Amino acid sequence: MRGSSVCAGGNPFVAAAYAELVEVFMKIILDVMGADRPAKELIQGAVLAKSEYQTDIVLVGNERIIREALTALEVSADMFEIVHSDDVITMEDSPMSVFQTHKDSSMAKTLKLVADGEGDAAVSAGNTGAYFTGATLIVRRIHGIRRAALGTILPFANPVMMLDCGANVTVTPEYLAQFACLGSVYMEKACGIARPRVGLVNNGAEEHKGTPLYVEAYHLLKEMEGIHFVGNVEGKDFPYGKCDVLVCDGFTGNIILKTSEGLCRFLMEKVQEMFRSGMISMLSGALVHGKAKEMKRFFDAREYGGAPFLGLAKPVIKAHGSSDADAIKNAIRQAITYAETGVIEEIERQAANFKVPAAGAGRE
Amino acid sequence: MRGSSVCAGGNPFVAAAYAELVEVFMKIILDVMGADRPAKELIQGAVLAKSEYQTDIVLVGNERIIREALTALEVSADMFEIVHSDDVITMEDSPMSVFQTHKDSSMAKTLKLVADGEGDAAVSAGNTGAYFTGATLIVRRIHGIRRAALGTILPFANPVMMLDCGANVTVTPEYLAQFACLGSVYMEKACGIARPRVGLVNNGAEEHKGTPLYVEAYHLLKEMEGIHFVGNVEGKDFPYGKCDVLVCDGFTGNIILKTSEGLCRFLMEKVQEMFRSGMISMLSGALVHGKAKEMKRFFDAREYGGAPFLGLAKPVIKAHGSSDADAIKNAIRQAITYAETGVIEEIERQAANFKVPAAGAGRE
Repeated sequence: MRGSSVCAGGNPFVAAAYAELVEVFMKIILDVMGADRPAKELIQGAVLAKSEYQTDIVLVGNERIIREALTALEVSADMFEIVHSDDVITMEDSPMSVFQTHKDSSMAKTLKLVADGEGDAAVSAGNTGAYFTGATLIVRRIHGIRRAALGTILPFANPVMMLDCGANVTVTPEYLAQFACLGSVYMEKACGIARPRVGLVNNGAEEHKGTPLYVEAYHLLKEMEGIHFVGNVEGKDFPYGKCDVLVCDGFTGNIILKTSEGLCRFLMEKVQEMFRSGMISMLSGALVHGKAKEMKRFFDAREYGGAPFLGLAKPVIKAHGSSDADAIKNAIRQAITYAETGVIEEIERQAANFKVPAAGAGRE
Repeated sequence: MRGSSVCAGGNPFVAAAYAELVEVFMKIILDVMGADRPAKELIQGAVLAKSEYQTDIVLVGNERIIREALTALEVSADMFEIVHSDDVITMEDSPMSVFQTHKDSSMAKTLKLVADGEGDAAVSAGNTGAYFTGATLIVRRIHGIRRAALGTILPFANPVMMLDCGANVTVTPEYLAQFACLGSVYMEKACGIARPRVGLVNNGAEEHKGTPLYVEAYHLLKEMEGIHFVGNVEGKDFPYGKCDVLVCDGFTGNIILKTSEGLCRFLMEKVQEMFRSGMISMLSGALVHGKAKEMKRFFDAREYGGAPFLGLAKPVIKAHGSSDADAIKNAIRQAITYAETGVIEEIERQAANFKVPAAGAGRE
């Protein structure tokens, strides 16, 4: 059993029940190129993960850079398998590039290795759009799944998986209904939550609320079997444990996630500022500073590792573009959890039940 | 000159430059019925506003209830004009009710009084949908304005007007472009910000980002004369002064606003919790508690008064449904500012320039 699962992240505020993980031999494929930080930072994350989780890790990227980084980190190159690629997908490349102009890039090779069964899960901190499109085309979706989704665990009173977080900017009511199924399986298998409660992001609690897309999605979700739909959930209730899975389109999800990140940073700066002035600073300035800094990391990508792509035939984890070594370590831990808790097998098993009722069913 | 303008709210963290207000005789029409709290709370807000701003206030609602409340508050009924209505629009009534089944409700009468020039501005804490629809049908839009918008001042590093905040769940690119114009005039006239910077809410900074609606809106905004468009703004940047006006559809705006409210409350509870435990609590527990409570009010509706409807021929202010007396006082102050700084005259003057370029103009 490992100490903590993906749902905990390193976040000290998440105190939910976690699935207990059985130690299984795993091989994680890590794309070390194309992130905001240099390859050495990502490789350091792999070194941390290797020592903490005793997993096999394949480093994919420029072999010279990888070997130099390992030497600089005083780590034997024998600890890792290295797969060379001298082509990199940058943050500016188009989503299709991984499949077209950069077929031999480290990202494409990472996905191919996992697709071919050469590893159990893929992790990359590179271009999200390219990684998502590449994963859909190379790893492929599970039969019956119309669109893969990008999920993120929000570290609230209880961990909440929000999906989609930005991969699918435009969706249909049917996609939203399937996202609910994907998120439910993940929260049940990877986080040990029985019968996860599914909420639909909306601008009001009543079932007629929202755009026509959301009104229709509400009716589909209400009719779906095998999920525990609890209705619309408003922004003010997100942190307060109303659901375990939060469903929305990728445009809205991205804005919720980034608004939360920005606001959290802003508020904690305000807290620090307030305590810097006045009498309290003399009493406990340094302590407060430390606490506020800790809070600032609340929504920090480093803490909750990566975001799983759900609906694909193999576990694919997207680490934040600006991930440091700790974040990469956490993303690798999340990849292990994703692979060994049988999320994908369960989605495959249930996919037939994910059939969305005919559009309009259940509507007045 | 009054001490503070609408943009400040009572919020201690907003420290922008404010328009200096000239003392003008004003008459504000206040709907005291149909809010979450009893009429007495709203009437107490009117009493506070009357004493602080020396404005005339007309109380619209059940006369008996109003007189009893004034007696209970030990205030002479002579201080206020009272307009009787024994019909109330509830939070459950449909948006059209103010114009159809509840034509003589306190809300409908409030709007009619303002429409007929019997007062300078309307304030209600009742049903938002009914108030918005009623205002559009009774007060009417300024000629050339396609849709009125609900704006809210976000109390960030600099005050930011976000619009639409929930009145228009579905919009067109043209509506979004006009919202930019409306918000710009408001921030210039009511908050004294020269050439307000307009940002478009989006899931990325690049101009191709977002749904087709947002891509098209981007191109319209880029072509519009008379506004200072600074491009797409991501959630993480909202608090950091990238723009003065933030444009989005009402679905997204509502979710941004409510997510911010919920997250702010949640984080401040976490701060209090953290400081309650450990050594720091012995040093400064009570002081921290007070500070965190202060921060919790950061996104509190009471602090920043009400939300202006923009694009209507008269100033109409929506106070939060759960407004207490202080919030009503702040909403009345905001109504005064809205009326006396000439926002509407300026929108009327500029409406011809708000002409949105033909759809598709400026697109590749």
